[in-house]
Amino acid sequence: MTKMRALVLEKQHELKLRDIELPTEVGPGEVKIKLHTVGVCGSDVHYYTHGRIGPFVVNAPMVLGHEAAGTVVEVGAGVSNLKLGDRVCMEPGVPDPNSKASRLGMYNIDPAVTFWATPPIHGVLTPYVVHPANYTFKLPDNVSFAEGAMVEPFAVGMQAATKAKITPGDTAIVMGAGPIGTMVALAALAGGCSRVIITDLAQPKLDIAGQYQGIIPVNIKDKKLVDEVNRLTENWGADVVFECSGSPRAWQGITDVVRPGGTIVVVGLPVEPIDFDIASLSVKEITIASVFRYAHQYERAIALMASGRVDLKPLISETFSFEDSIKAFDRAVEARPTDVKLQILMEA
Amino acid sequence: MTKMRALVLEKQHELKLRDIELPTEVGPGEVKIKLHTVGVCGSDVHYYTHGRIGPFVVNAPMVLGHEAAGTVVEVGAGVSNLKLGDRVCMEPGVPDPNSKASRLGMYNIDPAVTFWATPPIHGVLTPYVVHPANYTFKLPDNVSFAEGAMVEPFAVGMQAATKAKITPGDTAIVMGAGPIGTMVALAALAGGCSRVIITDLAQPKLDIAGQYQGIIPVNIKDKKLVDEVNRLTENWGADVVFECSGSPRAWQGITDVVRPGGTIVVVGLPVEPIDFDIASLSVKEITIASVFRYAHQYERAIALMASGRVDLKPLISETFSFEDSIKAFDRAVEARPTDVKLQILMEA
Amino acid sequence: MTKMRALVLEKQHELKLRDIELPTEVGPGEVKIKLHTVGVCGSDVHYYTHGRIGPFVVNAPMVLGHEAAGTVVEVGAGVSNLKLGDRVCMEPGVPDPNSKASRLGMYNIDPAVTFWATPPIHGVLTPYVVHPANYTFKLPDNVSFAEGAMVEPFAVGMQAATKAKITPGDTAIVMGAGPIGTMVALAALAGGCSRVIITDLAQPKLDIAGQYQGIIPVNIKDKKLVDEVNRLTENWGADVVFECSGSPRAWQGITDVVRPGGTIVVVGLPVEPIDFDIASLSVKEITIASVFRYAHQYERAIALMASGRVDLKPLISETFSFEDSIKAFDRAVEARPTDVKLQILMEA
Amino acid sequence: MTKMRALVLEKQHELKLRDIELPTEVGPGEVKIKLHTVGVCGSDVHYYTHGRIGPFVVNAPMVLGHEAAGTVVEVGAGVSNLKLGDRVCMEPGVPDPNSKASRLGMYNIDPAVTFWATPPIHGVLTPYVVHPANYTFKLPDNVSFAEGAMVEPFAVGMQAATKAKITPGDTAIVMGAGPIGTMVALAALAGGCSRVIITDLAQPKLDIAGQYQGIIPVNIKDKKLVDEVNRLTENWGADVVFECSGSPRAWQGITDVVRPGGTIVVVGLPVEPIDFDIASLSVKEITIASVFRYAHQYERAIALMASGRVDLKPLISETFSFEDSIKAFDRAVEARPTDVKLQILMEA
Repeated sequence: MTKMRALVLEKQHELKLRDIELPTEVGPGEVKIKLHTVGVCGSDVHYYTHGRIGPFVVNAPMVLGHEAAGTVVEVGAGVSNLKLGDRVCMEPGVPDPNSKASRLGMYNIDPAVTFWATPPIHGVLTPYVVHPANYTFKLPDNVSFAEGAMVEPFAVGMQAATKAKITPGDTAIVMGAGPIGTMVALAALAGGCSRVIITDLAQPKLDIAGQYQGIIPVNIKDKKLVDEVNRLTENWGADVVFECSGSPRAWQGITDVVRPGGTIVVVGLPVEPIDFDIASLSVKEITIASVFRYAHQYERAIALMASGRVDLKPLISETFSFEDSIKAFDRAVEARPTDVKLQILMEA
Repeated sequence: MTKMRALVLEKQHELKLRDIELPTEVGPGEVKIKLHTVGVCGSDVHYYTHGRIGPFVVNAPMVLGHEAAGTVVEVGAGVSNLKLGDRVCMEPGVPDPNSKASRLGMYNIDPAVTFWATPPIHGVLTPYVVHPANYTFKLPDNVSFAEGAMVEPFAVGMQAATKAKITPGDTAIVMGAGPIGTMVALAALAGGCSRVIITDLAQPKLDIAGQYQGIIPVNIKDKKLVDEVNRLTENWGADVVFECSGSPRAWQGITDVVRPGGTIVVVGLPVEPIDFDIASLSVKEITIASVFRYAHQYERAIALMASGRVDLKPLISETFSFEDSIKAFDRAVEARPTDVKLQILMEA
Repeated sequence: MTKMRALVLEKQHELKLRDIELPTEVGPGEVKIKLHTVGVCGSDVHYYTHGRIGPFVVNAPMVLGHEAAGTVVEVGAGVSNLKLGDRVCMEPGVPDPNSKASRLGMYNIDPAVTFWATPPIHGVLTPYVVHPANYTFKLPDNVSFAEGAMVEPFAVGMQAATKAKITPGDTAIVMGAGPIGTMVALAALAGGCSRVIITDLAQPKLDIAGQYQGIIPVNIKDKKLVDEVNRLTENWGADVVFECSGSPRAWQGITDVVRPGGTIVVVGLPVEPIDFDIASLSVKEITIASVFRYAHQYERAIALMASGRVDLKPLISETFSFEDSIKAFDRAVEARPTDVKLQILMEA
Repeated sequence: MTKMRALVLEKQHELKLRDIELPTEVGPGEVKIKLHTVGVCGSDVHYYTHGRIGPFVVNAPMVLGHEAAGTVVEVGAGVSNLKLGDRVCMEPGVPDPNSKASRLGMYNIDPAVTFWATPPIHGVLTPYVVHPANYTFKLPDNVSFAEGAMVEPFAVGMQAATKAKITPGDTAIVMGAGPIGTMVALAALAGGCSRVIITDLAQPKLDIAGQYQGIIPVNIKDKKLVDEVNRLTENWGADVVFECSGSPRAWQGITDVVRPGGTIVVVGLPVEPIDFDIASLSVKEITIASVFRYAHQYERAIALMASGRVDLKPLISETFSFEDSIKAFDRAVEARPTDVKLQILMEA
């Protein structure tokens, strides 16, 4: 353990940039990484504003931050895939490799996963972190640290696109044009969709998503989604609907916009149970899939970014210095519709 | 058109055995079948007692009956798969082969399907019917007419078992031990499950289902399902849950009994929207599949019955003569928990 | 039947532009199309040079051409998806909608399919053709006739990409950079791959394919494929290998470049049986998938072209007038490595 | 390490029952098992007769035996799924949980797997063995030790049935009625097939397999398989063909017996490359799947045996005492067609 400066959530509404004891010893199979860029995620902000997310409560000071890229500065015994100086990004969740879910290949739903900045586990808004090499991924030369720190939220989109079992050329709908909805839309296109209809009530969010070729923004303040979908698909419906808003209203009539035999993917999570006409699935034999974080997506996400098939740079709205990281969080609390991703630069 | 004696639903609560004009001309690709056995289905009974099912309203006299087996007595031009005297059973739904859904192989969800005993289409509680040869299936010598008339409800179970994408050796739960739940349980076992936990509040229904090797009845009046599932699966959960009760209460806590990465299949349809914690799918990445009738299941169902892997004979509770068919319906209205399937023998 | 000018293959090596009787009556469910652009396909050329392809022998004069786009000039009874003046492209194969394969959704492998320019069925190098509306597809405004005539070969690529069951971000190999290999590579990228390694011995072909972002050309005259794959995938192997060369040598050691659990898709067909180490599949549990033409791909292909996710225009090497269509075929016989697709403009 | 009596393969053709040093210390996550029953597998016999299997050469004395059941006699730290006295069977292969293949859920194709009785790893024809608890599975009360020792070969069948992606009611062919072919046939039935056509030249093997309901034996000395399949499937073909003979001749014309869109599963491994008409896959869009041992099958196999859906007891041909284990091997070398499985009883 070593004292390191870090962005510490002391308790709800109280952030401090201060020294805190953090582990720095590098065990077998591990690497030590000097952090370069860390993104601000909605969940970090939610801990700041609410002190909890569902059953996860901040009962002790906790370092925030889990969307991270940096440089390998120390390599543990038995690590063969990484070497000193490698530019990397990291999965924030580390499962028990011997759990039943992990052995089946679904390590993301292993209940024993520890996850950065999810109480009581510290995050990485601090200069160094020690991490298993298996969950640390080399960045190609043409992928910047800033993009590397975007792999985490993009991996959520990738998991959704994977679970959707897209057939090449599918038409998708993404409900909700926030950061996750936009990531899902880009992953759906990269994952085989020909076009993605994205919906929101906030025009600036739709304008940002609409910059990408293949994304069709629909402001549902002005237009009925079902009419747009029928027009664009000749009354057949969308192959896949990604529900990313978490709004109970999104579920009303959702089956009207899905084609016979199509799929709905639950990404946004309503806080309360919803009122849902489950019988409406039946007449079209619709499937509902769901996602929890991601598994096996980092290498795939990085490959798509490296090949130029996915460009996340336009989604980085502003970058703050580590010293200004409280400002970054206060800005994130504002929830400006023109902000997609705020990042913190850890190095001078 | 020819006048034929038939069981006619005149209007809600009024059944008559009387003559009615029915088509008897055999066109190309069609066969004429002399009916032998016709089963009484819950939907027939529901039209009798309620005069409608959802949007389908009995506005004119309609012949009931759609679970049928008989003998080919006339063969239309261009029919090569059937010949005079073949013992057969028939799919009651006939799709438009040129619809988009049909061309994709999902003819059951073609909105243009016509279906026996679904207004305004007549059913087959009458001596003869003309039907497309493509939806008429030869019965092997060791499958009786009575069993042939069970293929229709069993095909619903087969569709559910198919949509569940069972992995050999899966553990399933079937919620609701009525006729459809029991068919689903047998199809799930035949389709690869090692064991099926079936639930109900009515002990006689559970006793009938529990006669089959591999079916584990659980009376949820006495026991908590989640405890039984945890005990039987070492706290892992069931691979597949078939919800066949249509009860909103079945959906409360349903994800507690599904394993991580498991599947729920919607078979029973709640009449009203349900209150559902859709977020509870996410943490286990559960999938919900749904079924509507069946497609491509008749040959498979018959093959399973012919090989002896599925025995539906114990589910035939009582057989009535055609002359007694109103009695058969009145008995079905009683809904005795010891009755699974009532059948009507059309031939003397 | 009407006499129309057409490019007729009289017999092997003999092409004539002359009048021939062709059907022009529009039946129910059909449309009449004025042809605008027709592509020259390797199979057309093969009939010209060899008089046959496998069991299909040119025993009577046959009009060539099956990659086509044009304009609807007459609409048959009961057609609702098309109207006069619609710009369209057409599937050359028409199945029996009542065959078992068609009903299962696999109409491409219905043995009763009739296919343009496959003896004894005439092709479409002629001013007009009558075709089922169900196999005629509207082109969006931003897809040209020339691109419309590319949908047919691209659909082959789409079928391969679909059968490969690509997971978003997969790395693929395409063996053979001819027209079909290039189409497959583009479909694989559009269908979710992050990158496609394409191989050939002819550098000009690799140069054309290599223009596309995400395609990595490898000249196997200079480099060992297995070394390149190991370098690019950190010794893991490719997720999918599309064998498009039809060369028996491509199958030697093919499993060395596939990852554990990966897939090989057979696109190119060796003329003779090959010598194959089938046991080498086992240790990596590799799957081999195969494709035959395509099913349900046209709308998907058009959607990808319309959204800008696939650009086939750079693959149109040269356009000939209808009057010069014999020149077009003689040029195709040359098989210049810089030619991908030659097209014939039917309209003045 | 402790000296224990064991059946040791000294070198090709030389077996000895003698003392040898074997590990007996129980580490964390491990259990110690007193062996009760061990089956004789074809691979054990092959090491005895040939001294090697492919690249695996017996260069030092090696204990044979890997199909095993026994009783837990010591439990290591951190083991929660097992306790003293539990009756168990064991997977003979232990992977590296941190390898890429293992993390993806495919631990069977992790190249780092160590496997009992595969040089240089000792087998279990000895009184005690120490094994990871994660690869040790509790036997229900109604599954005997003898059946427990059959789980290993049956798991091979389960892996094949799983990879075949059986649709409920499928018709399968199993080529080769040896022990593995028979296991595959039973797993295919349990996994959802309605019937399995099994082929061989040796009538006694067919007679044993044919005892099971749903298995149709075809002696290909007397009958042409393709004729039988056409007769039984109305010229459609089998949904799945499991090639278990390893004979190159089985691959000649194999696609003739597969239905359009069907699957071939490679189970038997030809020693040399075969002559294969790979183009014949294409016209029917046939898929070839392959298997290597098994992953995640033990619990599923045990559940099927416990529920009575699979009965392997009729396949146990004879049981030898541990003292007679050399006799058991010499009997196995005879390869009597009436022998399916020989077992060795380890306990007095």
